[in-house]
Amino acid sequence: MTNQKKYAPAEGFLFTDQYQLTMAQLYFRLGLHEQHVQFDHIFRKYPDYDHAAAGYCINAGLESLVDWLRNTHITEHDIDCLRGHCGPGGDRMFQDDFLDWLRQEGHYRKISLRAIPEGRVVHPNVPLTVVHGPLAICQILETSLLNHLNYPILVATKASRVQHAGRNRPLLEFGIRRAQGFGGNVGARAALIGGADYTSNVGISHALGYPPKGTHAHSMVQLFLALGMTELDAFRAYAKAYPDNCILLVDTVDTLNSGVPNAIKVFEELRKEGHDPRGIRLDSGDLAFLTVQAAKMLDDAGFTDAAIVLSNELDEMVIWQILEQIDEEAPRVGIDPETIVNRLVYGVGTKLITSWGAPALSAAFKLVGVYKDSEWQPAIKVSESIEKTPNPGYKNAWRIYDDRGYATADVLSMGDEDPGDMDPLVLRHPSDESRTRTLNTSGISNMELLLVDVMQQGKLVYDWPSIEQIREVKNKDLGRLDTGVKRLVNPHVYHVSLTPRLWEMKQRLIRLTKEKEKK
Amino acid sequence: MTNQKKYAPAEGFLFTDQYQLTMAQLYFRLGLHEQHVQFDHIFRKYPDYDHAAAGYCINAGLESLVDWLRNTHITEHDIDCLRGHCGPGGDRMFQDDFLDWLRQEGHYRKISLRAIPEGRVVHPNVPLTVVHGPLAICQILETSLLNHLNYPILVATKASRVQHAGRNRPLLEFGIRRAQGFGGNVGARAALIGGADYTSNVGISHALGYPPKGTHAHSMVQLFLALGMTELDAFRAYAKAYPDNCILLVDTVDTLNSGVPNAIKVFEELRKEGHDPRGIRLDSGDLAFLTVQAAKMLDDAGFTDAAIVLSNELDEMVIWQILEQIDEEAPRVGIDPETIVNRLVYGVGTKLITSWGAPALSAAFKLVGVYKDSEWQPAIKVSESIEKTPNPGYKNAWRIYDDRGYATADVLSMGDEDPGDMDPLVLRHPSDESRTRTLNTSGISNMELLLVDVMQQGKLVYDWPSIEQIREVKNKDLGRLDTGVKRLVNPHVYHVSLTPRLWEMKQRLIRLTKEKEKK
Repeated sequence: MTNQKKYAPAEGFLFTDQYQLTMAQLYFRLGLHEQHVQFDHIFRKYPDYDHAAAGYCINAGLESLVDWLRNTHITEHDIDCLRGHCGPGGDRMFQDDFLDWLRQEGHYRKISLRAIPEGRVVHPNVPLTVVHGPLAICQILETSLLNHLNYPILVATKASRVQHAGRNRPLLEFGIRRAQGFGGNVGARAALIGGADYTSNVGISHALGYPPKGTHAHSMVQLFLALGMTELDAFRAYAKAYPDNCILLVDTVDTLNSGVPNAIKVFEELRKEGHDPRGIRLDSGDLAFLTVQAAKMLDDAGFTDAAIVLSNELDEMVIWQILEQIDEEAPRVGIDPETIVNRLVYGVGTKLITSWGAPALSAAFKLVGVYKDSEWQPAIKVSESIEKTPNPGYKNAWRIYDDRGYATADVLSMGDEDPGDMDPLVLRHPSDESRTRTLNTSGISNMELLLVDVMQQGKLVYDWPSIEQIREVKNKDLGRLDTGVKRLVNPHVYHVSLTPRLWEMKQRLIRLTKEKEKK
Repeated sequence: MTNQKKYAPAEGFLFTDQYQLTMAQLYFRLGLHEQHVQFDHIFRKYPDYDHAAAGYCINAGLESLVDWLRNTHITEHDIDCLRGHCGPGGDRMFQDDFLDWLRQEGHYRKISLRAIPEGRVVHPNVPLTVVHGPLAICQILETSLLNHLNYPILVATKASRVQHAGRNRPLLEFGIRRAQGFGGNVGARAALIGGADYTSNVGISHALGYPPKGTHAHSMVQLFLALGMTELDAFRAYAKAYPDNCILLVDTVDTLNSGVPNAIKVFEELRKEGHDPRGIRLDSGDLAFLTVQAAKMLDDAGFTDAAIVLSNELDEMVIWQILEQIDEEAPRVGIDPETIVNRLVYGVGTKLITSWGAPALSAAFKLVGVYKDSEWQPAIKVSESIEKTPNPGYKNAWRIYDDRGYATADVLSMGDEDPGDMDPLVLRHPSDESRTRTLNTSGISNMELLLVDVMQQGKLVYDWPSIEQIREVKNKDLGRLDTGVKRLVNPHVYHVSLTPRLWEMKQRLIRLTKEKEKK
């Protein structure tokens, strides 16, 4: 939305839910608005992509969130909007004293934030972002924080799965046209973090410093036909304009009888002129069958290096199946399947940018602590299910590596606990009382804290890594993750545990809350 | 993304796919870049929400698109980005002559646009937006146009289905936290068009002139508990702050044993002070069962007007099932189910804003005509399937109403045809040669043109209707749509047909294209 004036309130401080503001005013009335509190952002379960739930997620979105926090404050126009808001009875929703406070304090300069860095492998119920600040401001922040973080995590995770299914061949993000408005830019960045090498999205590519990728569409060939020319004319014209960047889309008319032969003809002409043709793109039909046939035709013509770009409703499952089929069919035409796979490039659009099958992350931003009488009082929401009850209080999150160097569990501890001091280390299941696991120090190769300081009182205290550095973090984490956890279907369940002290504190709090409410 | 300078290229003229720019430069090289062409935006099939495909769509997104078109032009920074883009061989992708042209012509002031207005019921393969303009600019526009229109259509359609399933009780859009960045604003507006009465999204509500809706979250009750107080204290505090807008969320602790009784206690106190309590919200558990029980408790306490707001992963199917269950269970506690339904309000978040089950619309923006030798030459893409082959050329789109006043078919005609002159009117199936349908003029009560002029040479020639007016358009269209087409599951198929002349022209073009390519 570009009508700047009209839509200005929609991307600033008022990019939130109404109930956050009504609660903020209530806290103001009660004198609680500047009460120092802690909220944790967690996701409750892995995204389930049409019955293929992930076994891990890739963290993403933090930089955009913090950019927004540091650049956003309430405006006089926002105040006017709130002042003009009347209930059905004609009474004003927000009174002047609250609005005066908001005019002064409607910003995020008193917020401190710890977070797990972008690109890291993350798991359910481990705080990804921990926010400290004045109660009313944290409450207003909830909506925007969830918006900024949930969606990128989904896309980064899906991109990682697609990259894995595609045997780490180049992956291009193509989805901007299927995104929710400029959310496509957020998605493209998350894809670049999670597994995409490049994106077709021009603007975000330049903003992030990655050259955008793309060649031509069916409409180009179609235009030539409409003007009385042929597919071959179209290919020749394209090759002439981009002799060193020539990838031809071969399925506008008839892939094997027209597209591929015409592409080969043009590639031969390019080669004669000293250029190196880049490859072809297939966008319809039986992509595995067509890939094998096209590879054979390209090989026979001496273009063994020409890439084959695949697109059309791809995701990790479709790519997995295509590669299986290539493995089976390639030998029948006398080609080593590996040489085919090694020339593949994937263009993944719709299903990546929308996180098809799981377009929302089950995540929450929960009040877990209140700073009162000079110490942290843990807060808890006793849900119907113990699984959904957040882990209360000021905590630390640790990752434990086994003697092979593989991540074996994420552990939440009290803020003053160091699992390194515990031998053996007893891990409690977060909701099932009967399940514990005991690790001897000798079986542990490393323990690391997952949360780092990002913002203190609104000031950035963290150096943003580049996309390249974030990818290295991701690759390192994926390398230390059990293969079983990375399975696309029915992955092994990674352990997220509590220390015994945190477990006891949580149980005590649940009991206390239930007893109190019985009165 | 708010880092203005860094992300500026991502929301302007370069909010497009790379291949649009490489094709544009090619057209520039060939002297075709200013060739006058027509592109049609159509969707190919109704969104299929997890095996419950819609029988109609609601059009939306046009105003945002046109706002963007009228405010967007290439910047010097964009030109710098393109100038700096080099291929893998180090060669520049875009040459100076093309960039000079783009510096002059990189805007949408030469675009003309006809469209079906927002709020109208629309069907597959009928052009929703028809764009005329210079070839290179239309090509660059494709990505952004699809982005601006596809997603709002999905959300408006889903909102209409939810409203229908909910028996037209008030519907609140709650999804901003699950959206793709600021795409949540686009979604909220589309929801307001399609069926939502209000949204919780504060900024967009004020931008559009609708008061945002919302009360409080679990976190409010939880905070009181953490501070050593009770749910009742929390409710009292809230009621005191909002005595005339008091809706209490009753499921933080125990809905029937704590939440509802505490709410009733507070409502009685409010009533004593002359205030009218608004109602309660249920956000977990068996919503149908809890609704019936809570309704009985509220009735018994004399709060027969108190609303019951339902939320928690609702969509049209869940609401349908909840209402069925209420119909069955209410009589068992001696309540007329209708009185319960008539106090319901739905808060629908995740599944509406993400268009859960169908998070992308199968839509395309296709070159259908080239203006050459003073007339329109139809263009066609001969796909593998005739269903996917767009209808070529300059066309009109008509809606035919039967003698009951119901819409019976959408008909595409040649630009110079008037179906009103044909008696009988023969309708051809767009892809199946064997299927025709004949309508006598006597059985037709009305015929109307669906496309209206919106932009001519970049100038707005259309008065934007208000959201209220758009809703009236939608309600009128829904009222003239067969009940069978509106079924949530397995709806009756609405006819989209071609006139015989358009059918013949399309077939001839397909034959010609295939013959040409055989040479």
